[in-house]
Amino acid sequence: MEKTIGDDYADNVRLSGDGKKVIIIDQTKLPNIEEYLTLETAEDIYDAIYELKVRGAPAIGICAGYGIYVLARQIHTEDYSDFLQKFREYKEYLDSSRPTAVNLSWALNRMEKVVTGHPQCTVSEILKLLEKECRMIQKEDIKMCRAISEYGLTLISDGDGILTHCNAGPLATSRYGTALGPLFLGKERGMEFRVFADETRPLLQGARLTSYELARGGIDVTLICDNMASLVMKNGWIQACFVGCDRVAANGDAANKIGTSGVAILAKYYGIPFYVLGPGSTVDMACPTGADIRIELRDEQEIKTKFYREPMALPKVKCYNPAFDVTDHSLITAIVTERGICYPPYTENLAEMFRI
Amino acid sequence: MEKTIGDDYADNVRLSGDGKKVIIIDQTKLPNIEEYLTLETAEDIYDAIYELKVRGAPAIGICAGYGIYVLARQIHTEDYSDFLQKFREYKEYLDSSRPTAVNLSWALNRMEKVVTGHPQCTVSEILKLLEKECRMIQKEDIKMCRAISEYGLTLISDGDGILTHCNAGPLATSRYGTALGPLFLGKERGMEFRVFADETRPLLQGARLTSYELARGGIDVTLICDNMASLVMKNGWIQACFVGCDRVAANGDAANKIGTSGVAILAKYYGIPFYVLGPGSTVDMACPTGADIRIELRDEQEIKTKFYREPMALPKVKCYNPAFDVTDHSLITAIVTERGICYPPYTENLAEMFRI
Repeated sequence: MEKTIGDDYADNVRLSGDGKKVIIIDQTKLPNIEEYLTLETAEDIYDAIYELKVRGAPAIGICAGYGIYVLARQIHTEDYSDFLQKFREYKEYLDSSRPTAVNLSWALNRMEKVVTGHPQCTVSEILKLLEKECRMIQKEDIKMCRAISEYGLTLISDGDGILTHCNAGPLATSRYGTALGPLFLGKERGMEFRVFADETRPLLQGARLTSYELARGGIDVTLICDNMASLVMKNGWIQACFVGCDRVAANGDAANKIGTSGVAILAKYYGIPFYVLGPGSTVDMACPTGADIRIELRDEQEIKTKFYREPMALPKVKCYNPAFDVTDHSLITAIVTERGICYPPYTENLAEMFRI
Repeated sequence: MEKTIGDDYADNVRLSGDGKKVIIIDQTKLPNIEEYLTLETAEDIYDAIYELKVRGAPAIGICAGYGIYVLARQIHTEDYSDFLQKFREYKEYLDSSRPTAVNLSWALNRMEKVVTGHPQCTVSEILKLLEKECRMIQKEDIKMCRAISEYGLTLISDGDGILTHCNAGPLATSRYGTALGPLFLGKERGMEFRVFADETRPLLQGARLTSYELARGGIDVTLICDNMASLVMKNGWIQACFVGCDRVAANGDAANKIGTSGVAILAKYYGIPFYVLGPGSTVDMACPTGADIRIELRDEQEIKTKFYREPMALPKVKCYNPAFDVTDHSLITAIVTERGICYPPYTENLAEMFRI
């Protein structure tokens, strides 16, 4: 396989050589420190997901897959039903670490199916199948990101200005990324883009991760505060918005990082196409509309004190800190997955594309 | 005069007892430190405005009025034309400290007219008139804010949710504030509001100043990141948006803190009224449209490093840091000044209201 810019990030989430640990880059330390963490216990894995050391829906799925495998190895029994029960306890625990991204439960369910699908096997045989499965999740993710990147690239032209929100790059996935994938792929092919990255408060994934990834990849990137997107669009600098997604409902409503719906409304106002890019596993056909997606609320200190040298508001000031919002399907120009580019009407076209 | 909540802030900008210094609260230190600064030299005053130690269009005007008076006292001449020349040098220098807010040059022009209007007077007589004039600017501001608050209060109801961006409270003016004025006035009259304050990146005036002022005033305030406004509106929590303004063009286009235009577009999308509140001096009938308003660009370190414990983006990442944007008049439900509530069509109605 040819060496790509995305290859630099292939090891953001991986299994250790002995298969006993998950190794991740600590995304909370970027861009200043590139530090890898070794996760061994259920608490290690839960905390890494909850504290966003690993984040991005696909990357969370990959980490959960490796994580449940590492934990399954720690179940000391030869009895199938004992094993299954303990496996499910671990699964439930990891699944509770973050509620919004569908990939977390998707990966854990997929791993569980390996167990429930092989009651005739020994625990040791099941473990081998589990290892194969979690490695497969990552391999498929890389392939998916490549396909998403190819489709996404057909939506933009050399020289375009692209606005993105939060981080849906290699760090959020396994390679290339979803929303940033087309930009890395285009860059490999000699195209140039001018990317505007929303810093993405409160956790600054746009500043800390997206601008870091793009600058490292030699792509022209300009960091802006979230509230500058309107002016940047008005200036005529943006030809398309590319964002990732954490869960897409059957009607095309898409949950993504808080602020995404605002970007979509601005794009609509300024007549700029707004594209949602993500793996097919993000499309949750069991979820009818965005109203059925649970939005995670996080600690107010993320707004008031985290990252800052001193508190930026008085202790008695309340904060509202939702981690995601839902972009109405009517604001989305197209949804791009590894299966292709899906245009409205989404209820019909997603059903067609994701028919089982 | 009755004691009001706004009274606590009457001294944000004031002349020292001997008339030789301007005293301001250092807004860059809030909310953690309440520190007053003494400004004596032209550089002191320029820097206080440029570095946002004093900010908010009306407060800048008041500070500039006091400032040019303090500097005029330092002109050691009895000759009128020498005095006028030196006065104009100071004026030009102070006027260059920030380009967007009209109140700065408005106040300085008003002070200059005192000088040019009295060529027959001695310098000592002119200084007395200048002192009277700059004190008058502040007195008028307090009266204006009261009138704006009264008009604004008619636009909302007890129990309403109000979204505001940046800071247009007592700190930005002299008392009450403009956009926050109706809330303080309503509070005095026993009304309750639920205010959502955008934190307002990069300089966090919403977090540092607005939530501080409202919480001190006993008004229910919830701090949000700028990118959460869309979800808060979608949740049905907002009945009106109140924002200040730094310059309003003759067609109703309004320059205000960066991000304001985005809030206006969201409000339009969600069907929420969007009100711009400011002193009449902010309406610049000489400025045809928003396209004629110069937008100040500021240092990128305000985004990447200011306030943060460590840089939030790599040094090689570029930033775009406009301090203001222009909200198109078509997005503004009404413009509220001390002269009343001006509805569209603005070209006609502002001309009517601000006819000289």
